[in-house]
Amino acid sequence: MSTLTHFDAQGQAHMVDISAKPATHRIATAQGRIQMRSETLEIILAGTAKKGDVLGIARIAGIQAAKKTSDLIPLCHPIALTRVAVELEPQPCTDNSGLAHIVCTATAETLGPTGVEMEALTAVQIALLTVYDMCKAVDKGMVMCQICLIEKFGGKSKDL
Amino acid sequence: MSTLTHFDAQGQAHMVDISAKPATHRIATAQGRIQMRSETLEIILAGTAKKGDVLGIARIAGIQAAKKTSDLIPLCHPIALTRVAVELEPQPCTDNSGLAHIVCTATAETLGPTGVEMEALTAVQIALLTVYDMCKAVDKGMVMCQICLIEKFGGKSKDL
Amino acid sequence: MSTLTHFDAQGQAHMVDISAKPATHRIATAQGRIQMRSETLEIILAGTAKKGDVLGIARIAGIQAAKKTSDLIPLCHPIALTRVAVELEPQPCTDNSGLAHIVCTATAETLGPTGVEMEALTAVQIALLTVYDMCKAVDKGMVMCQICLIEKFGGKSKDL
Amino acid sequence: MSTLTHFDAQGQAHMVDISAKPATHRIATAQGRIQMRSETLEIILAGTAKKGDVLGIARIAGIQAAKKTSDLIPLCHPIALTRVAVELEPQPCTDNSGLAHIVCTATAETLGPTGVEMEALTAVQIALLTVYDMCKAVDKGMVMCQICLIEKFGGKSKDL
Amino acid sequence: MSTLTHFDAQGQAHMVDISAKPATHRIATAQGRIQMRSETLEIILAGTAKKGDVLGIARIAGIQAAKKTSDLIPLCHPIALTRVAVELEPQPCTDNSGLAHIVCTATAETLGPTGVEMEALTAVQIALLTVYDMCKAVDKGMVMCQICLIEKFGGKSKDL
Amino acid sequence: MSTLTHFDAQGQAHMVDISAKPATHRIATAQGRIQMRSETLEIILAGTAKKGDVLGIARIAGIQAAKKTSDLIPLCHPIALTRVAVELEPQPCTDNSGLAHIVCTATAETLGPTGVEMEALTAVQIALLTVYDMCKAVDKGMVMCQICLIEKFGGKSKDL
Repeated sequence: MSTLTHFDAQGQAHMVDISAKPATHRIATAQGRIQMRSETLEIILAGTAKKGDVLGIARIAGIQAAKKTSDLIPLCHPIALTRVAVELEPQPCTDNSGLAHIVCTATAETLGPTGVEMEALTAVQIALLTVYDMCKAVDKGMVMCQICLIEKFGGKSKDL
Repeated sequence: MSTLTHFDAQGQAHMVDISAKPATHRIATAQGRIQMRSETLEIILAGTAKKGDVLGIARIAGIQAAKKTSDLIPLCHPIALTRVAVELEPQPCTDNSGLAHIVCTATAETLGPTGVEMEALTAVQIALLTVYDMCKAVDKGMVMCQICLIEKFGGKSKDL
Repeated sequence: MSTLTHFDAQGQAHMVDISAKPATHRIATAQGRIQMRSETLEIILAGTAKKGDVLGIARIAGIQAAKKTSDLIPLCHPIALTRVAVELEPQPCTDNSGLAHIVCTATAETLGPTGVEMEALTAVQIALLTVYDMCKAVDKGMVMCQICLIEKFGGKSKDL
Repeated sequence: MSTLTHFDAQGQAHMVDISAKPATHRIATAQGRIQMRSETLEIILAGTAKKGDVLGIARIAGIQAAKKTSDLIPLCHPIALTRVAVELEPQPCTDNSGLAHIVCTATAETLGPTGVEMEALTAVQIALLTVYDMCKAVDKGMVMCQICLIEKFGGKSKDL
Repeated sequence: MSTLTHFDAQGQAHMVDISAKPATHRIATAQGRIQMRSETLEIILAGTAKKGDVLGIARIAGIQAAKKTSDLIPLCHPIALTRVAVELEPQPCTDNSGLAHIVCTATAETLGPTGVEMEALTAVQIALLTVYDMCKAVDKGMVMCQICLIEKFGGKSKDL
Repeated sequence: MSTLTHFDAQGQAHMVDISAKPATHRIATAQGRIQMRSETLEIILAGTAKKGDVLGIARIAGIQAAKKTSDLIPLCHPIALTRVAVELEPQPCTDNSGLAHIVCTATAETLGPTGVEMEALTAVQIALLTVYDMCKAVDKGMVMCQICLIEKFGGKSKDL
């Protein structure tokens, strides 16, 4: 029967015991997107071509956020990340909706006893929020969506 | 012509000057949702009824995250928040998709020279991620979506 | 002759060298209590039965604080905690003093070269402070006391 | 009827609204103590006389912790502290118990809409924990106790 | 007679009382430089022209560090910064020393009761360290120097 | 051909992969200095002799900063430091310039897959800034300089 591992037999939350789990190479990749007006994406891309680099700043914010995951998510273990990479890919409007997207993909890695899904997801969330922050003055209708784990290696449950 | 305020005339990122903006009462409300299998929501609700309170922990994580916004989003100003509230509402499956949702709504308030949209959005993101963290062992297909600002008062641009 | 290990031969503080210490499984349990009026404990327990879960919030705050120990205590090493659990047990008044208690017990674990006493103690302190914070409007005479280490395993000095 | 202000009508935790509270000069003083063997206090005082300054380091740790209060206590507001002072007073053994104490007194001040009790208490707790950390190798029986608020000015409820 | 304000009459460190100081508009500008081999600067500039933007990342790190000043410098007050700007200017080698520089200039502003020199200096230090981090694999002889305050407005002591 | 390892083939910043690097004992020592008026150094030394211990506080700030390196420098890996030591040595004026110095030397150690240069340098920078903070009221012309790595052991590139 399925139970939530973050709660003990009395139903009290705890940070689960990973002392007995083997240290293996673990990788997780998460993805998400922010939807915006086509004009907003054009402004971002114009800036990136010159110097106002929205995507570069969002990438750095995502990498730094991955390192703060255990500070943000109450029951996450502190993890010695061995790699973090964040990619932001513009997707211009291809129909007549007037809506464009930026897709963010983040990969986290560690050699340790527990997985790094939360680190990859946190990187995606904060990278998207950083794009939002820099564009909110020109576009009040942005929406973040489809944020999920897309790949995971290492540990017992290798497949998604 | 519309430009991004976080970049100066040379296209370099900066934290914009808010010294001359009046301190007013500002409120922002953001919302988002996490989609999960119906069984996952049932496990969460069973726990909440007893003691394994996923939603209560996510609410606390969201409130704490709002206070960390300027630490997470590079160009955000540090803000003296006067109120933060985070609500998580379960939405059981009402069709034959087998999919349920938890909707998170967060409100942030301040008396100050700049808005609190980013604080409300950060609270939503981290509250949803906390739900994800506690349920990821039983549901590998959860997706977070429709995260956006839904209401904003105070400051120059009162309407969304 | 007994000396303080956090100071070198010149009497200058440093973070002591643990490079040569073996990584072993280490566990520490700390405990403390907060004394309050009987009526205050009743209000807390009434809330817990419903939804205003003081003890659940304090537990989360304690777990998160354990992860911040090396940020709070100047000469503590950063530690990869493998488990943290915090328990809060109400002790209603059993005499005619009108005074009740909540006892907090925290356990921290790691696989590493140094002990986790400070992590367990920090969890207790912050969990008790969180109870204090939520009850201070109704009880101005609360006192925290008897905060100490009660058990320690692993490392050279196994016994307390 | 007495209720806990950190919970709304539905019993859900929130950071309470202080937007309408007047900004006044607020001061809070908290106190606590750590009990140790007489020999331990002698080692500390010998060090302070020379250079291994346990009390000086604990004072700094307490001041820094006051600034982190809203990061540690989930429902505390971020506060612009205008002053923090931490004092540590040794109390040598005066009977035949063989037990000595260090008494820590911390004062926090602000000009703002909410009190600073939690900041003063957090400073005391972390200053005492820092003493504990530096002495734990020579004294495994230390206990922290009598941690409470001793004075409060400003705001509606001026008296303790 | 000149004394250090961070110490009280007993010589004990404290965070000085700024409750009675008027809130005024305060600005501080600090500057510093990192010296490197000419080839290292060329690699940096080549990257900036393309996408590997060392200077852009250092700018962001400096802005974020300004917000962490009171967390890093023990006796600094938490400050509501209203603006932070960080500029990094390459200075190619103009003699036959083979040495080039990057000059970092940071400006911090607030409306408050105390100055922002430390915030501007912290931004410079961390921005320079970030350049160092990204170039250390190709240049082991980099040196940071001439880090000082160059301008200050607001408050009692207006001139440097 | 020399390239910056923090950027991938597309020129995008990432935290480089250290999963395959062996965990070895690594040590790094950095140094820097702050120049001040002779009178300022005299005030500091007078205080240290008594109780106003500028150098002791700066040492603690440096040690704590080493632990925050990965939070400050965007692409640094989180590292389990096994030792940090910070030394501050006064250098009184020996010529007729009227200028004195304090030299700060910091050593960081770890058992891990990547070096600790940045941790040693960050400790130096923040220790010097802390001296600056406490003396800025009596000396507006202080300058920090000659901050660099002076020694490094462990890892592939053993020599500076």
